[in-house]
Amino acid sequence: VKRLKTVTIIGVGLIGGSIGLAIRRRGLAQRVVGVGHRQSSLRTARHVGAVTNTTIDLAKGVAEADLVIVCSPVAAIVEHARLAARHCPQGTLITDAGSTKRSIVETLDDRLERGCRFLGGHPLAGSEKVGPAHADADLFERRVAILTPTAATRAEDFDLLERFWSSLGSAVIRMSADEHDRAMAATSHLPHAVASVLAVSLPETYFRLTGSGFRDTSRLAAGSPQLWKEVFTLNRDYVVAALGRFGQQLDTLRTAIEQHDETTLENLLIQAKKNRDALGS
Amino acid sequence: VKRLKTVTIIGVGLIGGSIGLAIRRRGLAQRVVGVGHRQSSLRTARHVGAVTNTTIDLAKGVAEADLVIVCSPVAAIVEHARLAARHCPQGTLITDAGSTKRSIVETLDDRLERGCRFLGGHPLAGSEKVGPAHADADLFERRVAILTPTAATRAEDFDLLERFWSSLGSAVIRMSADEHDRAMAATSHLPHAVASVLAVSLPETYFRLTGSGFRDTSRLAAGSPQLWKEVFTLNRDYVVAALGRFGQQLDTLRTAIEQHDETTLENLLIQAKKNRDALGS
Repeated sequence: VKRLKTVTIIGVGLIGGSIGLAIRRRGLAQRVVGVGHRQSSLRTARHVGAVTNTTIDLAKGVAEADLVIVCSPVAAIVEHARLAARHCPQGTLITDAGSTKRSIVETLDDRLERGCRFLGGHPLAGSEKVGPAHADADLFERRVAILTPTAATRAEDFDLLERFWSSLGSAVIRMSADEHDRAMAATSHLPHAVASVLAVSLPETYFRLTGSGFRDTSRLAAGSPQLWKEVFTLNRDYVVAALGRFGQQLDTLRTAIEQHDETTLENLLIQAKKNRDALGS
Repeated sequence: VKRLKTVTIIGVGLIGGSIGLAIRRRGLAQRVVGVGHRQSSLRTARHVGAVTNTTIDLAKGVAEADLVIVCSPVAAIVEHARLAARHCPQGTLITDAGSTKRSIVETLDDRLERGCRFLGGHPLAGSEKVGPAHADADLFERRVAILTPTAATRAEDFDLLERFWSSLGSAVIRMSADEHDRAMAATSHLPHAVASVLAVSLPETYFRLTGSGFRDTSRLAAGSPQLWKEVFTLNRDYVVAALGRFGQQLDTLRTAIEQHDETTLENLLIQAKKNRDALGS
């Protein structure tokens, strides 16, 4: 990938911080500017080497950017991308790392000021850890990064981001924002909902009776309620549909157990194991 | 705990093998006899040091036992305990490590031959790994072991098993077999069912789009279909009830998302995080 002069990362949490660290370790840019709300996070991001410069002033932070990556919480991405377009060099490419895409892409596609373009992105990487202190230069190695181009997307913008994510170790998949949101409802948002319902339904008297199985299955429930409320809200239709399908499958299992239908029960468990084994550990 | 001369473990998989290894590391018995179906498993169990002697002949294996621990799959525990009672020294205590208790305890309580007694047990420890090759002497450290005495249980039998599990590092909790099964439906069987439904409902085209979140939430689905069919069957009523309650909570979440009810959504996610955080990592 051609070396960039300045990349600006808006939002230096786990994802933004890890992108910055990965850029710097691989020498993909001369300067990595981190923009954030809190001086303490920015200090940590500098301290771990995720960024070379920091500011709480978004306008100043993007002033010399060749590429802007918005890693803010999903509900803030549209606003931050618009602000970036107003203050960055003319014709700058702006992308994001948000876990929903449709509403963001629909709002920003072909509508930014001053010749700036938005191309949606979503690295499928993460952790239950939060904040730049846990930034990991290899977070995107052997992962998938999704890009969601539209009819308005320029080929060279897509190519630049494809090379960018490839350089960070990710396999790049192209899909529409709508396909992305439908897929994520099943692969990411549904598991979070299921983990949360499992955690919320556990009576306190049973806490000490849980083992590693319960902890694994409910782990995602430790994520930020605010962030996930936004995700569920932005991807409402597909999340509701995924929850509905899951509920039906759950009914199938419950009925099979209730009615001594061992064939259905066994087939379901066999297929579930087959699918899970295919995903690896 | 008083040193025993011979402990016989029927079923030397991960749990049986780990119990054997833990006994030997702590010097709790002179001999640990492993009984199994397959010579290959028995050889592995000997090789890793989980047992001192092995046999595929249950009658011979229990002939000198001071304590018999049945670690067979749940559906075989009753039969193996009865066989053990027929061939072990008169008045020997027999326990188990099965993950359901009610049907086993109801069948065996106060009904074994030749003065033998059954006292149900369940160490809340495990792993997605199977087989004696993964036996771990510390598998029960800082875990919970449940004992399910009845009105017929002798105090000295309970004391022996309480000291035994304490020696292996577990906190011993006493509850009725019925309470046990109701609790496990919520803390162990429900997560397994949920993980399996999640895994089975994933379309193959989405496999490559899953991340660590999906993998954690569905991890339990990799367990043995045969074993889990037995568990769901033996604990049918409580599992069906737990699945019903879970389904209702899931409906609550789905409705909150669908109807833009942000308060209910946020409260659910906040309470879920609170519960999950209380369980530790």
